Amino acid sequence: MEIEFLKWLRARLPSCPNLPLGPGDDAAVLELTRGSRCVVTSDMLNEGVDFVSGQCDWRLIGRKALAVNLSDLAAMAARPLAAIVSLALPREDALAAAQQLYEGLIPLAEEFDVAIAGGDTNTWDKGLAISVTAIGEVTGSGPLLRSGARAGDAILVTGEFGGSILGRHFRFTPRVREAMLLHANYQVNAAIDVSDGLSLDLSHITEESGCGAMVQTEAIPIADDAFRLAKEAGPGKTALEHALSDGEDFELILAVPSEDSQRLLADQPLDTPITRIGTFIEEPGLWAASAEGGRQILRPRGYEH
Amino acid sequence: MEIEFLKWLRARLPSCPNLPLGPGDDAAVLELTRGSRCVVTSDMLNEGVDFVSGQCDWRLIGRKALAVNLSDLAAMAARPLAAIVSLALPREDALAAAQQLYEGLIPLAEEFDVAIAGGDTNTWDKGLAISVTAIGEVTGSGPLLRSGARAGDAILVTGEFGGSILGRHFRFTPRVREAMLLHANYQVNAAIDVSDGLSLDLSHITEESGCGAMVQTEAIPIADDAFRLAKEAGPGKTALEHALSDGEDFELILAVPSEDSQRLLADQPLDTPITRIGTFIEEPGLWAASAEGGRQILRPRGYEH
Repeated sequence: MEIEFLKWLRARLPSCPNLPLGPGDDAAVLELTRGSRCVVTSDMLNEGVDFVSGQCDWRLIGRKALAVNLSDLAAMAARPLAAIVSLALPREDALAAAQQLYEGLIPLAEEFDVAIAGGDTNTWDKGLAISVTAIGEVTGSGPLLRSGARAGDAILVTGEFGGSILGRHFRFTPRVREAMLLHANYQVNAAIDVSDGLSLDLSHITEESGCGAMVQTEAIPIADDAFRLAKEAGPGKTALEHALSDGEDFELILAVPSEDSQRLLADQPLDTPITRIGTFIEEPGLWAASAEGGRQILRPRGYEH
Repeated sequence: MEIEFLKWLRARLPSCPNLPLGPGDDAAVLELTRGSRCVVTSDMLNEGVDFVSGQCDWRLIGRKALAVNLSDLAAMAARPLAAIVSLALPREDALAAAQQLYEGLIPLAEEFDVAIAGGDTNTWDKGLAISVTAIGEVTGSGPLLRSGARAGDAILVTGEFGGSILGRHFRFTPRVREAMLLHANYQVNAAIDVSDGLSLDLSHITEESGCGAMVQTEAIPIADDAFRLAKEAGPGKTALEHALSDGEDFELILAVPSEDSQRLLADQPLDTPITRIGTFIEEPGLWAASAEGGRQILRPRGYEH
């Protein structure tokens, strides 16, 4: 089916000035527009792990496979340039599956000017796997790393957290534009996107930066979905616990020096709200500040790989 | 297993000056050394299609997954820079499998100064899939394309053809150094690596270049493995037919203008022989020149996708 599929695909791929040679030769040629440093990331979604066949539209899977990679580029404040898409397709209905995956993926690629620079499309007797590698280029003063947070920096987050499993994990828009705008206009010392869980991803910043974090848990923006989930699931987790641990919010956690954070919070330069949820501190570990001025350990929770 | 595995892996990854930030953050940062144009390719190997579990050493699979991508870069005369490796691993013995795959892959990466710029490592209830995306950079006057052959160009090939299934398809060394050396010192108008089959890949050049090819079949360098296969398989294909159609030789087919081809054949600048097997002609199609000065149609055969 590969030749038939490639014909179908090539008629639908957006043309991209950054891709002087697209799929069809032994490799594609990609032009960086802002120098010679590129940023590379890869994520694979697997049937039975990341989604259940028959329970969701494969267009959503295709879109998500690209979106999670763009979210990783956003966490570096990189500008997306190209994606390479590898598909392992169950033999039955392979062509229809490939088309649906791309029908979900292509509109997102167009929205972010991402060239589809090739990939591989195989069929087999096993389950569906879609692996996307995304290439971006560094913007501004360089990539935002997890390791740059300093004691005293404000902990800022975009958007809301918790309950993304109710649908937001498919529909989210990666914070690419937001990250580039913030990186261009404010001092941002570190960043990560929340895939594993707000508290767990925050701990990735503190560990890489050699610091800790004091969190005002009452300041955490909790999504309506987290309240719904807390209610529907009965006496399980609270909405706040969902917000701290559910993951797949694909929002940004940012470390911003105090003065810039005040300016940023006053400006609110994004369409989505930015909220301060605490402060990076010298002492290692995550802490929840209590109302009485005390504190307690905040255990990082989320999706452990 | 991912954290345990990543710890194991990071201790083994060679350091690369081209990779100022390796795996561990949201993305890796890659530095191009010769400008701003990179070359990107991707190939996935799947259990039950490209190999049979239990019948071969997974180190060979890991090595091959990288090698086929380096062969694609060689076909563009690109210098390899980095590889991104995505694994879907059967849950049982996943850690051992991942380690074996990398034990095969890493020595080849070291040999060609390829940075492992990250990837994804997942486990599931299905089969083994390994997807590698390779990034290289353009050398010399630009990438060698399939579309550049002109009538009158000599058809040159590296190495020998046929019977790679007997083991060479695992052990081959991608013609990266050879391609760069030829591109730097001779006029090469077009190139492809032989993955599908000598005659089929030759037809990819003629189709993309809008020309044909007259092949002196008696000049084709036939591998000993092709003779072995022809003999062992009984009255099936001849050794020549194996050479023309087996594929996975991962040798280069080159279109070289007449004068440069004479100089090149006299120089024999590579460790492996370069052989002229025919001439690109204006008339479309592949033709086999017969001893009496006539010709007959040469049907392109090989692995049809």
